[in-house]
Formats: sequence, C-alpha cells, structure tokens
Amino acid sequence: MTAEVTEYPALGRLDDEARAVLFTSARTANAWTDEPVTDEELAAIWDLARWAPTSSNIQPLRVLFVRPGEGRARLVRHLSEGNKAKTLAAPAVAVLAVDTRFHEHIPVVWPHKPELMDAYEASEARRETAGRLNAALQAGYFILSVRAHGLAAGPMTGFDAAGVDAEFFPDGRYKSFIVMNIGHPGENAWRHRLPRLDHEDVISWA
Amino acid sequence: MTAEVTEYPALGRLDDEARAVLFTSARTANAWTDEPVTDEELAAIWDLARWAPTSSNIQPLRVLFVRPGEGRARLVRHLSEGNKAKTLAAPAVAVLAVDTRFHEHIPVVWPHKPELMDAYEASEARRETAGRLNAALQAGYFILSVRAHGLAAGPMTGFDAAGVDAEFFPDGRYKSFIVMNIGHPGENAWRHRLPRLDHEDVISWA
Repeated sequence: MTAEVTEYPALGRLDDEARAVLFTSARTANAWTDEPVTDEELAAIWDLARWAPTSSNIQPLRVLFVRPGEGRARLVRHLSEGNKAKTLAAPAVAVLAVDTRFHEHIPVVWPHKPELMDAYEASEARRETAGRLNAALQAGYFILSVRAHGLAAGPMTGFDAAGVDAEFFPDGRYKSFIVMNIGHPGENAWRHRLPRLDHEDVISWA
Repeated sequence: MTAEVTEYPALGRLDDEARAVLFTSARTANAWTDEPVTDEELAAIWDLARWAPTSSNIQPLRVLFVRPGEGRARLVRHLSEGNKAKTLAAPAVAVLAVDTRFHEHIPVVWPHKPELMDAYEASEARRETAGRLNAALQAGYFILSVRAHGLAAGPMTGFDAAGVDAEFFPDGRYKSFIVMNIGHPGENAWRHRLPRLDHEDVISWA
C-alpha cells in the first residue's frame, strides 16, 4: 500500500478496575433481573467487538439477537435441559454463528488481494478451518465486549446446533456454535469460581 | 453446590481509553523496536487471559513462548515467506496450540462432574470440536490481554502448522493454530485499518 498511515493506535496498560470487569473478577452469570437490554446496547456490543483482528480480516462471525417473546421460545426448545430456565429468564440472547460463505465479502474486507476469495471458494476444508477459528476468536472478543458494557454474559455450548440452525438459519449458510444470555445479574447469578490450570500445565518456553 | 458464594464479580463500563487500547484504536503490528519483552510480562499476559470463560472450564489452550535465539530460528522456518522477517525482528513470539487431551484435567477444572472426562475420552470428534472452539476463544482473550499490558500483538495464521508441531510438539498432543509476535511497535508497524462489515451483513434479530 502506498498511502501513508497517519493515525496511530493507542497503546496503554489497562488499570485494575478494567481488568476486574473483563477478566479477574468477572464470572459467567446464571440468573437475571427483569431490567431490559435495549437493541441499542446489543448493537453497541457488536460495534465494539468488531474491531479486534481476524485472519485476512475475514470476520466470519454472525450474530442473531433473540429478544423475549416468540423467537426466544423457538430458541429455548433446542437448548440442553439445564440451560432452558436461565435463557427463558434472560432479557436478551445472542446466537453466535459462522458464516460458511464468509469469503464472499473478501473484495470488501481485503481489497488489496481480492483473489483470496477464489482460494477460499476452491477449498471447503480451508473455509471450514478459517471460518471456525476466526468466528471463535470473535466470540471471545464478543464475550469481553458484553462485559465492557456493564452487562453480564452467560455463554453456553449446551444446545442442539443442528436444531437451532434448522430453526433460524434454514438455508444452511450459518452454523451456530454458541448461545449466550446477556443481561443484568439477578439473585443467585453466580457460582463459585472454578480453578484455572497451573503454569506448568499451560506454558512452555523455547 | 451447597457452599454459599460470598465474593461477587465487579460489573462496570469500560471507559473510552480502555476501549481504544483493546478495540477501537488498536491494530495488528508488523514491526518492532529492540525493547525486550520480559518472561514476567509474557507470564502476566497469560495470567490475565486465563480468567475468561471456556465450556465446562476445559481451558484447552496451551502457550509456547519463543524468545530470540535458536528457538526462534527453528520457528521462523515454518512461517509463510511474508511473515518471516517481522517474526525474526520480534522480541517475543507466542505459539498458541490446542491440547488434544485437555480432558485429562477435568477432575481438577470441573470437579463437581469429573465423569465429563470419560465422555470426552469416548469421542475424539467431540474433543476436537470443543478443543478447537475453546482454544480459539482463549486466543481471542489472549490477544486482548497482550494489548491490556501495553504491548502490541501481531497474530498470524500464515504458517505450516504440521511443521511447527513436528518441531516443537513431537509427541502429537498439541496442535498449533496461531503464531503471534509480541512487542513494542517499531517504525512502519502499522497498516491502514481495513473495513469492518456493516450491521446488515452481520446482525439479525428474532
């Protein structure tokens, strides 16, 4: 690219309060107050999360926001028994899905190398690997963005993905992989924090 | 669980400065100063990222930190041509991998339902799906944790994963999926920000 970069990114250390909200004190919520989550709040969660990076900027994550009412009833049918009650009580739910044809957007999102679209078109296996990996990266950003908005997240993988896809994405293009409750934590929202693995089980050096 | 939860998570909205550092202003870096990244900084990046959630707390991400020297030379051989020079110049590199036998830790990390270990042992397909999804979620947390420490991240998927695995994880248990440069941004570190998809391409409502 020949044009000069004139705006530089901010760098800085997050303070302890921000770390607490996102990481060190935050926990998955399991119960909710009646306080609504507005459509504007839900869109703002996406508007923050979308800036974090993906491979070749492919951005394969798609988000279906499900509000209380008939849509939520259709969704809850496909959840594991243990996840139904808390989702029925949640003021908002997000279904996170991979767009299996994300590469159709490459001429817009990776404009200096649009031929990458053809490489993905030629290999379903490559699409599947890149789509799943990058949509999950974006799901990580999304969970932290929920928390960055003063809300609690309740991400779940206990649901019938084929059932959810048939219900909401019948053309087969989007494949759901996380259902996430979003709201303000209610009574008995929290469980005890579970242990994290020790350094020697996770980190190695070369 | 019968024990009462007595410590409650902090909730709060991230201010604009923290949002800029993590999301709205941050970008992938492509060049580095000579300023070192210490082992303590690298361990601290993990110590923050590890608190964000995974399915049934399985935590399948493993991190190999590669420092300048012989290890880095072994790593760079397996990168795409376009990624070699910037990784050779980076003060630290992280190889992010999935532990394909993450379920061996379930008695520690999910102690109230240790039989989940057997369910994963019985199905390699289920292990693969859960391992890949949750390690990628954790990679998203990890990228944002690098930024939260005042450092720039340069995550890459352009490398020969089989080659990296044979080089560093020869027993076949860990499978690499991202190689990430970490450091202080140098001259010409930044490219122009690429466009993000519009709401109508990403968000739907029910």
